[in-house]
Amino acid sequence: MTVESWFQCIGNCEGKHSIFDVIYKCPKCGGLLEVVHDLNALQKKDASTWQNLFDQRGSNRIGANSSGVWSKKEWVLPTIEEANIVSMGEGNNPLLSTPRLADSWGLSNLWIKQCGTTHTGSFKDLGMTALVSVVKQIISQGGPIQAVACASTGDTSAALSAYGAAAGIPTIVFLPANKISPAQLVQPLANGALVLALDTDFDGCMEVVVECTQTSGIYLANSMNSLRVEGQKTVAFEIIQQLGWKAPDWIVIPGGNLGNVSALGKGLRLMLDLGVLQKKPRILVAQAEAANPLYLSYQNNFNDFEAQTADPTLASAIRIGSPVSVDKAIKELRFFHGAVEQTSEQELVEAMAAADREGMFTCPQTGVALGALKKAIQSGVVEQDASVALVSTAHGLKFSESKTAYHMDELKDLKAHQANSPRPVSANISEVRNEIERYIDSLGTA
Amino acid sequence: MTVESWFQCIGNCEGKHSIFDVIYKCPKCGGLLEVVHDLNALQKKDASTWQNLFDQRGSNRIGANSSGVWSKKEWVLPTIEEANIVSMGEGNNPLLSTPRLADSWGLSNLWIKQCGTTHTGSFKDLGMTALVSVVKQIISQGGPIQAVACASTGDTSAALSAYGAAAGIPTIVFLPANKISPAQLVQPLANGALVLALDTDFDGCMEVVVECTQTSGIYLANSMNSLRVEGQKTVAFEIIQQLGWKAPDWIVIPGGNLGNVSALGKGLRLMLDLGVLQKKPRILVAQAEAANPLYLSYQNNFNDFEAQTADPTLASAIRIGSPVSVDKAIKELRFFHGAVEQTSEQELVEAMAAADREGMFTCPQTGVALGALKKAIQSGVVEQDASVALVSTAHGLKFSESKTAYHMDELKDLKAHQANSPRPVSANISEVRNEIERYIDSLGTA
Repeated sequence: MTVESWFQCIGNCEGKHSIFDVIYKCPKCGGLLEVVHDLNALQKKDASTWQNLFDQRGSNRIGANSSGVWSKKEWVLPTIEEANIVSMGEGNNPLLSTPRLADSWGLSNLWIKQCGTTHTGSFKDLGMTALVSVVKQIISQGGPIQAVACASTGDTSAALSAYGAAAGIPTIVFLPANKISPAQLVQPLANGALVLALDTDFDGCMEVVVECTQTSGIYLANSMNSLRVEGQKTVAFEIIQQLGWKAPDWIVIPGGNLGNVSALGKGLRLMLDLGVLQKKPRILVAQAEAANPLYLSYQNNFNDFEAQTADPTLASAIRIGSPVSVDKAIKELRFFHGAVEQTSEQELVEAMAAADREGMFTCPQTGVALGALKKAIQSGVVEQDASVALVSTAHGLKFSESKTAYHMDELKDLKAHQANSPRPVSANISEVRNEIERYIDSLGTA
Repeated sequence: MTVESWFQCIGNCEGKHSIFDVIYKCPKCGGLLEVVHDLNALQKKDASTWQNLFDQRGSNRIGANSSGVWSKKEWVLPTIEEANIVSMGEGNNPLLSTPRLADSWGLSNLWIKQCGTTHTGSFKDLGMTALVSVVKQIISQGGPIQAVACASTGDTSAALSAYGAAAGIPTIVFLPANKISPAQLVQPLANGALVLALDTDFDGCMEVVVECTQTSGIYLANSMNSLRVEGQKTVAFEIIQQLGWKAPDWIVIPGGNLGNVSALGKGLRLMLDLGVLQKKPRILVAQAEAANPLYLSYQNNFNDFEAQTADPTLASAIRIGSPVSVDKAIKELRFFHGAVEQTSEQELVEAMAAADREGMFTCPQTGVALGALKKAIQSGVVEQDASVALVSTAHGLKFSESKTAYHMDELKDLKAHQANSPRPVSANISEVRNEIERYIDSLGTA
């Protein structure tokens, strides 16, 4: 069975474009493209055939078959040749249960999808393996690509640089000079990317990268390139498969540029279309109060949307006031009867700390998602006894600094109600025993 | 089929002890214990039955079945009840190929086992899930354990705290005061461990934790507790399974306390005993020059071993002069016809940088392993065209600071020959294009 997929205008302009063409926007209207799959061909397998097929493909292998993305290649990018797949073993991320937190919030189940447990430490690996594999296939067919490029201050540049380096494809990262520290850049630098520090702001960098990739042999990897969504949507496949091909009542996801919301919805819709999923889950998008344009639009039932200048937030990866994928995300929220909640800085740090006490090591974006979930339960949007899966987007090790500052109670304008700091004690066995006894007593477990 | 496993003295003193007893040393001779499995019972399944069974257990699940450790429970700790398993989805780590590095070093294959792509960012998760699950089972049977404890400045305390927190078991970490920064402690602090900062050095902390766990209800989680080896040995199972139940010519592993070397050998021997593996791989242990007691002993064919005071090294996790598991490790090295090589600080940073250029993001311990491999190839110990699997023990995100210092060429007394730093350029499209052109030309790919 050969199943095709192609680029098509999301505004329904006519025309199919090859995913191996160097094209980012609809040539007719200039709007975004999306990858469309031949649903009729995919539907020739029945639901249980698909389920059994994917249940048999484990991660105890090497290469494409060990990847959560490529072990579902038929639903991702079926025309990629095995030899062109650039995989770092992405996907197959744990879905961890947090029964104490669920219980304290009145949920029947709270599952945390650990997308940060991955090669570069964020969910961006899922999308980048798709994009870089397409680029490798274009190059292998003699296509005119000399390098891949993005403007990014964080996870996107880390993922692009790692996958580019693995593929042997030169990678270029555009950044505003003097606004990013070398520590924030260590992943692209280590992976050998050309890191250009431009004397402009982030929007200026984006303009330059878009212009550079118009005519030369530089391939654009920012999220207006819709290939990344094809890999990112596997987060939906994995959650549903891990729950035995059943949906939770809600899926919670932090939203900045909103590409991940669009990907989540796209993955869920494909599963509904193929009959491998029966029930629609609802989607709760979580925004930081400091960067909440979608939340404000939701207050008005999405009747209008206004971009904003986002304020600083600890959840730096979702500090975005003008999200590229807002239209796609609103479409998905309407389809999945979704909601949007916002989280303050104080709420997000406390939500992170609460989850960490149950063995997690959450990033601030996950804190936004947890904080929003808690508020949505309190307001009755998420019903009592609901089952919830929450997408954790990055590894906490990427945010050690702000997590340390919390536990030292050194976060500006915030109070650390669950701070935990080292206790000095003399190296005397009876003093140590007393200290331990006090601790055990304080827990009420003695 | 119920298969038993029990504690037994490694010095062959008589007596079997339950793994659910609170016991760390042989009651007769005071020597180390090890977990012994009922090999006759395990051999009742033939090799292909075991292989097929484990090949069918993927990671696309939740709970114990999604874990690389517990999906092989029969070979790990078969008498743990499902309800007592404390899993964070550990194991099933990618085995990534680095063909350019292999080629430049004259190897046929170089596979990197990414043990740092895991919940707490190091291979310690593999062992800690085993230990904490046993503790949970002891507590569930009314056993007198109030808390788990370890002395550790790094990965061990992070893993113990996370698994303890997930299980709801209080965790205590002992550390020398004023020698560890809060940033190094952020994982145990976030997970709510009681972190005791003692006015003594690391050896003093170890003495106190051992004394504390002699009589009270505090369970010892340091590596003289041999339960962790049972989880850690799954790294051997996974490498062999991922290579289609075949061994590479060599397995390279960094060695400090040497518990991981002992675990690797134990896992390989079980597979040989069960016939699922036919050929012995050889083992190359890599030590930092600054902490090289096993290397020095190897020079004398292991006829004597002298503990030392280890010097500082970037590979801080293996800065150990008096390794607890040295006897077990030497036994394995003799059985697997192993070798030991050492790596200087300069060699380790360059080896890390070379691997990172191919998409990795290596920790310094992995740099020691890579550097030692390169030298072992040059000296002819590892033959040309060999296939090699190398164990990467932690995620590079745990070492962002020293990796940044390398690329800024700010490491004391070291030269960064592969440093990569951001290039300032004006936000002018033609200047940017010129910069890119120069870069592409410099790569020789234009």
